[in-house]
Amino acid sequence: MTKLTLYSMPSSGNSYKVRLLLSLLGRPYTHVGMEYETPALAKAHAEGTLPLSKLPVLELPDGTRLPESNAILCYLAEGTDWMPSDPIDRARMLGWMFWEQNQHEGVIAVRAAILSYASRAHLRTPERLADLLERGHGLLQQMENRLETNDWIATDGPTVADISLYGYTHSAGTKGGFDMGRFPAINRWLDRIAAMPGHVGLNAIPA
Amino acid sequence: MTKLTLYSMPSSGNSYKVRLLLSLLGRPYTHVGMEYETPALAKAHAEGTLPLSKLPVLELPDGTRLPESNAILCYLAEGTDWMPSDPIDRARMLGWMFWEQNQHEGVIAVRAAILSYASRAHLRTPERLADLLERGHGLLQQMENRLETNDWIATDGPTVADISLYGYTHSAGTKGGFDMGRFPAINRWLDRIAAMPGHVGLNAIPA
Repeated sequence: MTKLTLYSMPSSGNSYKVRLLLSLLGRPYTHVGMEYETPALAKAHAEGTLPLSKLPVLELPDGTRLPESNAILCYLAEGTDWMPSDPIDRARMLGWMFWEQNQHEGVIAVRAAILSYASRAHLRTPERLADLLERGHGLLQQMENRLETNDWIATDGPTVADISLYGYTHSAGTKGGFDMGRFPAINRWLDRIAAMPGHVGLNAIPA
Repeated sequence: MTKLTLYSMPSSGNSYKVRLLLSLLGRPYTHVGMEYETPALAKAHAEGTLPLSKLPVLELPDGTRLPESNAILCYLAEGTDWMPSDPIDRARMLGWMFWEQNQHEGVIAVRAAILSYASRAHLRTPERLADLLERGHGLLQQMENRLETNDWIATDGPTVADISLYGYTHSAGTKGGFDMGRFPAINRWLDRIAAMPGHVGLNAIPA
């Protein structure tokens, strides 16, 4: 199996998703870190080397560069247990992954970013933080409803939709300030993923 | 081939994507319209019958309900020319589709919604409209860059990524107020899709 290169942002949940799946799959890769608001990332943007101007980017051995975390997860999962073969299960998995990018990430990750990054401090208004908190709890409740009666988010077994949603949900309390005590089923699901062989944390950045 | 039921919002680009693909594929279906801010939609939300509380929803003959427009497009495209079989082409297609939900829809569709729906009139501030206009022109420029040298958005041939992005781009000028004169390659691409056999407009709602 030839070696992959991953361009990723150490602090970003979107980048973390891909590092986590690569580790769970036991696939070796070269890691190129580009942190938010650093010269390395500014240089990549200026040179236009990042497709769709986003991170993470997966570079294949032939030089092909693939953007978008969830598309990369699907690519890496193809032919493994993380990608269901049944067409309806696959549609359910993709449904949660599009919801993650359209709904969840824009609230759960955005609140964490506003609280974490100095450059976003001007967005840290009480009204905005309260609005994101309320909407985030509503979105987490949708996950809770599913996970109350199912071990995994999309199908009977784990899929890359679980990895995708784990990316920002695992730190929704610590970084985003959401009240995770309300969501016991989510917490059990987070524990199930954290216990998987090969699991790595957000801060386990490859050398 | 057994009959499908589509729950869709007549005025929504996300719902339109699915109506357009079903028509291009020549697949018959039963249409159940639920317009924004109508009693029919409020009832469905109150009863919790829409997965992920969103439209469109595709109902299969066995009663399975699939949410999320882009996941539905992928499900319907499987086994047709609209879904590439090459894994890298498939990843490129999904990349544009996740970008559509994470970046494009939240700016291009949101500006149109703020300008169109009375209930969003309070969001119609000059600052917000100007910010969405500038960001939208930046996103459309990313599409323009790709389409200047390629007929289709993701691969050498049309895929459901083209349908996905067509959903809100085709009305970005008329509904969103974006200056489409800046984007000749996008306009040629819109014309190519509009000329396809089976193409229907947003307002062609099945009886």
